[in-house]
Amino acid sequence: MTDEIAIDPALVERFIMEMARFGAHSDTGVWRTVYSPEWVGATDLYARWCEDAGLKVKRDAVGNVWGRLDGTDGGKAIVSGSHIDTQAPGGRYDGTLGALAGLIALRALKEKYGAPRRPLEAVALCEEEGSRFPAASWWGSRAIIGRISPEDPGRIRGLANETIAQAMREVGLDPARIPEARRHDIDSFIELHIEQGPILEQAGLPVAVVTGITGIRHYLVTLEGTQNHAGAFPMDLRRDPMAGFAEIASGVVDTAHRWGRPAVTTVGRVEAEPNMPAVIPRRVHFTIDARHPDPEACARLHASHERLMQEVAARRGLDLSWEVLIDHRACPSDPGLLGTLQAAARSQEVPFMLMASGAGHDSQQMAAVAKVAMIFVRSKDGRSHTPEEFSSIDDIVAGIKVLAASLYKLAY
Amino acid sequence: MTDEIAIDPALVERFIMEMARFGAHSDTGVWRTVYSPEWVGATDLYARWCEDAGLKVKRDAVGNVWGRLDGTDGGKAIVSGSHIDTQAPGGRYDGTLGALAGLIALRALKEKYGAPRRPLEAVALCEEEGSRFPAASWWGSRAIIGRISPEDPGRIRGLANETIAQAMREVGLDPARIPEARRHDIDSFIELHIEQGPILEQAGLPVAVVTGITGIRHYLVTLEGTQNHAGAFPMDLRRDPMAGFAEIASGVVDTAHRWGRPAVTTVGRVEAEPNMPAVIPRRVHFTIDARHPDPEACARLHASHERLMQEVAARRGLDLSWEVLIDHRACPSDPGLLGTLQAAARSQEVPFMLMASGAGHDSQQMAAVAKVAMIFVRSKDGRSHTPEEFSSIDDIVAGIKVLAASLYKLAY
Repeated sequence: MTDEIAIDPALVERFIMEMARFGAHSDTGVWRTVYSPEWVGATDLYARWCEDAGLKVKRDAVGNVWGRLDGTDGGKAIVSGSHIDTQAPGGRYDGTLGALAGLIALRALKEKYGAPRRPLEAVALCEEEGSRFPAASWWGSRAIIGRISPEDPGRIRGLANETIAQAMREVGLDPARIPEARRHDIDSFIELHIEQGPILEQAGLPVAVVTGITGIRHYLVTLEGTQNHAGAFPMDLRRDPMAGFAEIASGVVDTAHRWGRPAVTTVGRVEAEPNMPAVIPRRVHFTIDARHPDPEACARLHASHERLMQEVAARRGLDLSWEVLIDHRACPSDPGLLGTLQAAARSQEVPFMLMASGAGHDSQQMAAVAKVAMIFVRSKDGRSHTPEEFSSIDDIVAGIKVLAASLYKLAY
Repeated sequence: MTDEIAIDPALVERFIMEMARFGAHSDTGVWRTVYSPEWVGATDLYARWCEDAGLKVKRDAVGNVWGRLDGTDGGKAIVSGSHIDTQAPGGRYDGTLGALAGLIALRALKEKYGAPRRPLEAVALCEEEGSRFPAASWWGSRAIIGRISPEDPGRIRGLANETIAQAMREVGLDPARIPEARRHDIDSFIELHIEQGPILEQAGLPVAVVTGITGIRHYLVTLEGTQNHAGAFPMDLRRDPMAGFAEIASGVVDTAHRWGRPAVTTVGRVEAEPNMPAVIPRRVHFTIDARHPDPEACARLHASHERLMQEVAARRGLDLSWEVLIDHRACPSDPGLLGTLQAAARSQEVPFMLMASGAGHDSQQMAAVAKVAMIFVRSKDGRSHTPEEFSSIDDIVAGIKVLAASLYKLAY
């Protein structure tokens, strides 16, 4: 049984509030996109806090900030962290909390137990959200696993049409050196993150141990019919892509609803052409986001959505096409780490549940080079990606205790 | 039995093609918005052709162009015409054909029969489509019936933010004089127009006598739910306005479909907020356009749509609100004119059917001061509001013969 690892609530709160000054937006929001002045300020502060905690600080070629405790026995590192960029605007917790949790856990472990046997690292990953460069999601973790191509920095553009290469140079980073960020010496990556959903709140629990990250597929669908006059064209002669869209959207959402948790399907985006009240549209574009953490069930969910689209389009005489914009396989947590996290939670007397993550996370990139697992902290009203997101200090402390106890089990 | 009234196909074709030069767009399109240079050219040509036909020409205070044959017995006028502005771009036929038909019919009647007993007039109405000034639909006919308020000219703005008052002054019209366009001396208004739908084509007939103009209501509906993460929020806890929208859109379209002709319901416009693939929307705005030419059935159709919206919103926990943007009562044709038009078609041996108009027309404005009825001419593929709209010269000549024979019955 691991001793209780004390985590200072006042320190946790101070770190969260001071970090939130960089990009502070409205009352409780944070707007901190990668390579912005706010981001530079936040990474500088993270580096300083790592030094204060006695960690060796390293900034890598894409701007990830690492704080390291060398291990007396050496070997591959046990790493914990998350991303320090936010949505535009996002809140104080999404991402940032995980970067701070890694740092706070290492600080507490070093104070209580001194040097570990195996190296321990905390990391603030430079970019996960894609909130400035939509095609650069997971930029920090992709650099670590070597999934940034040489063309990416000059090709990926931000919302002001700047390339990510330009943005890197403006903060003193050389895009040509990105390959140097690659790591081959990480054994395990444990990411603490806010839940971003209401499941813990509904269950009355502070913390979840995450069994895996959902598989995600985004379809961009186009339904094409015949544009006509809304008054003069009888219903029985129409090829109306809006009617087809409505039937498909209802159907895919109802399918996921009937499957029940953890299946989710969302139609978040729709655009009609010409989008006028008195014109039967000629074309409707829409997205389907369908997720399931079980790879086999995920494939069945996608197949069921595809069959429905084909059936509706054929029956209504509409032309149907789709692109798959995103297709991430489900990423189960490492079974050994899952056991370690659960044992750690029990040792710290933190009540928890098991839960799949419905959102994507840096961990699913890191899984390419390391064992991964995650800890979720309860989110008020299940909110995230908004200034209103909130997690209580008590819940956060509970989450960091589970993290610290897990790192202890792995590294000491 | 009226004699056959000969209409010269070559003249009809020449008038259509020469008029289409004003605002010619791509191969077969016309882009002629009110008070534009193209519009000025078209009205000048119309006035010249009226003079050539021996009609007395008058341009009124909003720019409607009238050609008149005085009646030997005096009395209120029998008028035929339609609008000379087009969609942006539209085609050669929508509107323009009716203005030309009135002129050609009067020209043929004068040549064959000389002066009428009662005054006959042809008219090119200045603006029906609202394609430059969206709030100025039926501008020409509204001036005639006195439904333009003194504030309208300074308040109604075009797509380049110019007021319609400025646009009038630029073509030499004084907005303060609009009330002078009002007419109290019109007995009957007969409008020839392309069908804009596929019903005549499907029936294999050139012409329809229009029993009335449909009632139209446009709803602008807002459904509001809770924006959340598409992955992390379970289906059973969502308040998803896109799912509610899809159910409502499917339902109202299916309702009109099951009612059968002439009921039509269209969802032409939808906008989601924030309209992102991985976010459950917080809000969806959409329109419902619902039409029926029978006033009682129209009211039942609207009530049925409203009940569905309320039921779906309540069951899904969504906030529902709507505005009624357009609400035109159904406008039945004058029974006496309907009989005259049918007798005229029989006298000219033009096969025809009865049909309600699913589109709005100047006639429904003119009904405020005159008896009204309409003649439809077959549209290829039911198209309109597009450069591809097309009606054959044979069908057009058939329609003008019905018109001319009707005017003969009414005025000679």
